[in-house]
Amino acid sequence: MRPALRPSTLLLCALALVASAAIAAAAAKPRTMQEVLDASQPSDWRALDPAHTLYMDLPGGRVVIELAPAFAPLHAANIETLARARYWDGLAILRVQDNFVAQWGDPEADQPGKRRPLGEAKATLPPEFVRPAAGLPFTRLPDGDVYAPEVGFSDGFPVARDPRRGEAWLAHCYGMVGAGRDNAVDSGPGTELYAVIGQAPRQLDRNIALVGRVVQGMELLAALPRGSGPLGFYEQPQQRVPILRVRLAADLPPAERTNLEVLRTDTPTFAALVESRRNRRDDWYKVPAAHIDLCNVPLPVRAAPKR
Amino acid sequence: MRPALRPSTLLLCALALVASAAIAAAAAKPRTMQEVLDASQPSDWRALDPAHTLYMDLPGGRVVIELAPAFAPLHAANIETLARARYWDGLAILRVQDNFVAQWGDPEADQPGKRRPLGEAKATLPPEFVRPAAGLPFTRLPDGDVYAPEVGFSDGFPVARDPRRGEAWLAHCYGMVGAGRDNAVDSGPGTELYAVIGQAPRQLDRNIALVGRVVQGMELLAALPRGSGPLGFYEQPQQRVPILRVRLAADLPPAERTNLEVLRTDTPTFAALVESRRNRRDDWYKVPAAHIDLCNVPLPVRAAPKR
Repeated sequence: MRPALRPSTLLLCALALVASAAIAAAAAKPRTMQEVLDASQPSDWRALDPAHTLYMDLPGGRVVIELAPAFAPLHAANIETLARARYWDGLAILRVQDNFVAQWGDPEADQPGKRRPLGEAKATLPPEFVRPAAGLPFTRLPDGDVYAPEVGFSDGFPVARDPRRGEAWLAHCYGMVGAGRDNAVDSGPGTELYAVIGQAPRQLDRNIALVGRVVQGMELLAALPRGSGPLGFYEQPQQRVPILRVRLAADLPPAERTNLEVLRTDTPTFAALVESRRNRRDDWYKVPAAHIDLCNVPLPVRAAPKR
Repeated sequence: MRPALRPSTLLLCALALVASAAIAAAAAKPRTMQEVLDASQPSDWRALDPAHTLYMDLPGGRVVIELAPAFAPLHAANIETLARARYWDGLAILRVQDNFVAQWGDPEADQPGKRRPLGEAKATLPPEFVRPAAGLPFTRLPDGDVYAPEVGFSDGFPVARDPRRGEAWLAHCYGMVGAGRDNAVDSGPGTELYAVIGQAPRQLDRNIALVGRVVQGMELLAALPRGSGPLGFYEQPQQRVPILRVRLAADLPPAERTNLEVLRTDTPTFAALVESRRNRRDDWYKVPAAHIDLCNVPLPVRAAPKR
């Protein structure tokens, strides 16, 4: 006859069962975004690359833009050249159109005698509206999209993808930054930039070079008075908010940089964040949506911890 | 032998051919939205109903809100009761959260000794988050939706529909107005209202009563400074933009009304407008999107022609 389990063994088994049930419950319990972020590890975040981070200093504060050289390398390089040449210093916000864009650049860009010279930067650039999908890291979202066959994230940027054509492109979500152009596809060298301040104008995807994303300071653009002219252009020079300076982070001494980290988009933590937003389970929500649009996924940013 | 055609007959035939070719070409040529609107007839537009139109006068100007009694009849009626009682006069914008909402109401709503009495208006209302789809006029959009089985327009409002459940509900597009509530589903009687000022927060659909749409004056809300407190609440009373008055259009003498018309959403003109936005064919666009999201369809408004 086998010996009966000793009481201490039974107790240990009971404790183990309770512990594993608790762990399983904690893993299964849908978490809020804040809980996901609170549980994140340092490796879930990445610092912005100072060589590809732009600071636009306005009277109201700093707009921080992460450039996207993986999608628009020539535009990113040209913008970096312009920033190093202090091209935008003293230029201005030209246009704020409600539920569309804020746009900035040289108010006299169309006046050959008065416009600011570009220095070593190029005046035209080949269009960088789409890129090959091959080789592009891509975390796909589960719920599809109205505009594109697939959507997801690539290194922190919202991306649409067409596997049949083997193409990928950045999507015009809120805060994305693009290079304004005229009708000619090479006429947007990055001297005039815009940021999306309303409902994502996805019809612009593949028609213009998106070059980056505002990671901090969107309210400095989105809350600007709307211009009274056509397309939201300001009609009087004094209405335009001046740009104090635009600098590459790498060109500032470390003490003047804004050290930010963004959540990586290729981790289980990010997947948990997406799920926490697809299905909100706090007490306020009665009907979790069970879906999420590409442009409704938050992309958290935080001050880089001191190390 | 038959007589040959006379030269004048040949000329008439040629002219007729040219004319019909021109007519056919004009009908087939994709039009811009402006061309569609320029070609619209008076019957393509409808006046706002003064009995269901709210004016919120702020120092910066007038916000005009069309209420949606077809979706939220109890909320619309309660809001109209509050407006008639001048409930919001001297209250304020409480909260502006970037890429989300502007919200307004009584800053002291949570203080029983200080809050403004509701008069004859109700303090709680049953939730009006969805309604039966049966009997609802509905112009379906062709491109589907991430969140709902069907989307389209009903009498000028953006709507999502689930035919399997037989339900329809208003969608949280830019400019839509809802009744803020606490966790209890009946806690949003319409005393505190919000408007969407960024990317459509579709996860709110079916969780809260949408009550109408801002048809004019969105910039007066969307360009407000963002609140510095949590969720964009203003932390200091002096930061809150005051509400001068809120009135039903019907309660003002005609000379004080803002007479607007909105484009009907159940006409061939509206279908042409949707198509002109799904596929942009002006010289600037290189790749027409061939799709459009519910919340990217413009809903034109104009001053009512004098008749």
